[in-house]
Amino acid sequence: MDEFAFIDWIRGQGAFDPQRVPVGPGDDCAVVRVGGQLLLVTTDQCADGVHFILDDCGPDAAGYKVMARSLSDIAAMGGRPLGAVATVSAPKGMSESQLQALYRGLRRAGDAFDCPLVGGDVSAWSHPLLLTTTLWGAPAAAPLLRRGARPGEAICVTGTLGGSLASGKHLTFTPRVAAGCLLAERYPVSAMIDISDGLAADLRHLCRASGVGAELRRDAIPLSAAARATADPLAAALGDGEDYELLFTLPAEAAEALVAAQPLDVPVARIGTATAAGDVALIDPAGRRTPLAHAGWRHST
Amino acid sequence: MDEFAFIDWIRGQGAFDPQRVPVGPGDDCAVVRVGGQLLLVTTDQCADGVHFILDDCGPDAAGYKVMARSLSDIAAMGGRPLGAVATVSAPKGMSESQLQALYRGLRRAGDAFDCPLVGGDVSAWSHPLLLTTTLWGAPAAAPLLRRGARPGEAICVTGTLGGSLASGKHLTFTPRVAAGCLLAERYPVSAMIDISDGLAADLRHLCRASGVGAELRRDAIPLSAAARATADPLAAALGDGEDYELLFTLPAEAAEALVAAQPLDVPVARIGTATAAGDVALIDPAGRRTPLAHAGWRHST
Repeated sequence: MDEFAFIDWIRGQGAFDPQRVPVGPGDDCAVVRVGGQLLLVTTDQCADGVHFILDDCGPDAAGYKVMARSLSDIAAMGGRPLGAVATVSAPKGMSESQLQALYRGLRRAGDAFDCPLVGGDVSAWSHPLLLTTTLWGAPAAAPLLRRGARPGEAICVTGTLGGSLASGKHLTFTPRVAAGCLLAERYPVSAMIDISDGLAADLRHLCRASGVGAELRRDAIPLSAAARATADPLAAALGDGEDYELLFTLPAEAAEALVAAQPLDVPVARIGTATAAGDVALIDPAGRRTPLAHAGWRHST
Repeated sequence: MDEFAFIDWIRGQGAFDPQRVPVGPGDDCAVVRVGGQLLLVTTDQCADGVHFILDDCGPDAAGYKVMARSLSDIAAMGGRPLGAVATVSAPKGMSESQLQALYRGLRRAGDAFDCPLVGGDVSAWSHPLLLTTTLWGAPAAAPLLRRGARPGEAICVTGTLGGSLASGKHLTFTPRVAAGCLLAERYPVSAMIDISDGLAADLRHLCRASGVGAELRRDAIPLSAAARATADPLAAALGDGEDYELLFTLPAEAAEALVAAQPLDVPVARIGTATAAGDVALIDPAGRRTPLAHAGWRHST
């Protein structure tokens, strides 16, 4: 099974009424119209042994992570969360106090972003813990999709990248809701995605949706301390994934103003340029161009 | 773990802003306010080995069931579905054609009720298939909650009860969306729930939420053909669960008019009366009163 091929197949299974469903499967959130209002909707799952190791991190961190991942999807559309529901498939024998810790972790992430957890479903079974969250939110301005990047625009990223799994950031990260909303409200952002699969893979998603290529400046990619501690910091930043930072495009002059002003609650850097050519390449300080290896972590493989 | 005790505990973990979240955890759907509009939101999960046997029913039926269960929750609030998202945790090795059949099952249920499946998440793992759906909808009139039944009101039910697991109805049932909306729009229904845990258990939920008791007329409970085929049809109707019929209360004279008119796309019957006393009892044709045994299937045990 290939998650991405399956999503492509789904997108071929009939179109939506564009009035009711302006954006269907394949972006960070779907966009639906309810009454007069655009709503962002996203759903995520986190499983013990895949997205966290329950025995290592405990139920509070697991709950935090699944909620924070969905918050990051709302952020990646330039939206504010409005509410959440969650499901818990708990291994038989999970104690009441563990379930309560799990709930507190979900709430810890939701409460930090004024996102009430309004309902859910709890069930026991003979297999590992599996959590899902579904969130809805409101776009701060027009929803920011993966498509929309144009050749010549700047490619920017928040924060630093790499080593999230090794450092534990994937359990404690701050979803970039405030940054995403400020970008949507005040900057001419043309396309945005959050980095869950890794810079290389998620940039490829953005480029594919937009029909552009990209050149990344090798020395401009912001490396996390955890990435710097590895043998190949650049590979970590490109491929590790689970950074939950924002990757976006906007006109070059607006990017210059953004980077000079640093108005977000997290550093923002320009790392490259969208191109007309379809591939994604690294440019080293000497100007040499290397097509990016098809690295990038996939959940489904 | 006791699902119901856990939900009680959650309900003690802080109140919601009643403007934003008029109804939180503990009913068939949460009710939230988005813009000027009330939205119903529900989330459900179905696991291989718990809610269906994948090898027996196949992926299409599994997909249908999880979506139909959520549609039934929208119906139980007197609502119309507006959209859905789903997650799939698929066992490694599940084939593309199986995943496609699963998707078709989800769509088969959603499409029948004009409920577009607008997004989701697919992941592979080394454990059985686990599906979740989250639906949102709009109440046809005021949302019908579990609370609101008053002593002296009639207790009614749609369809026939019992034997759903044995007969396979639990994989093919029709969510009572049309009936739920018609009841909400045209009858003074005071409380409603769908029968998933079984008539006895779900009536107890409704009574507990409303602060009433109930007397059921033993010979008025509509028995399904599958229940009649068992050694104890009444026990099947009371305890089997997964009927996905609507159980509701309304003033006695309105119930009389409803049962005489039969305006729903499914038969509706009066089966008893809400009482001031807190217990639930069966009344036999001779007038003898027997407290109902604490039967009723629980997902979580």
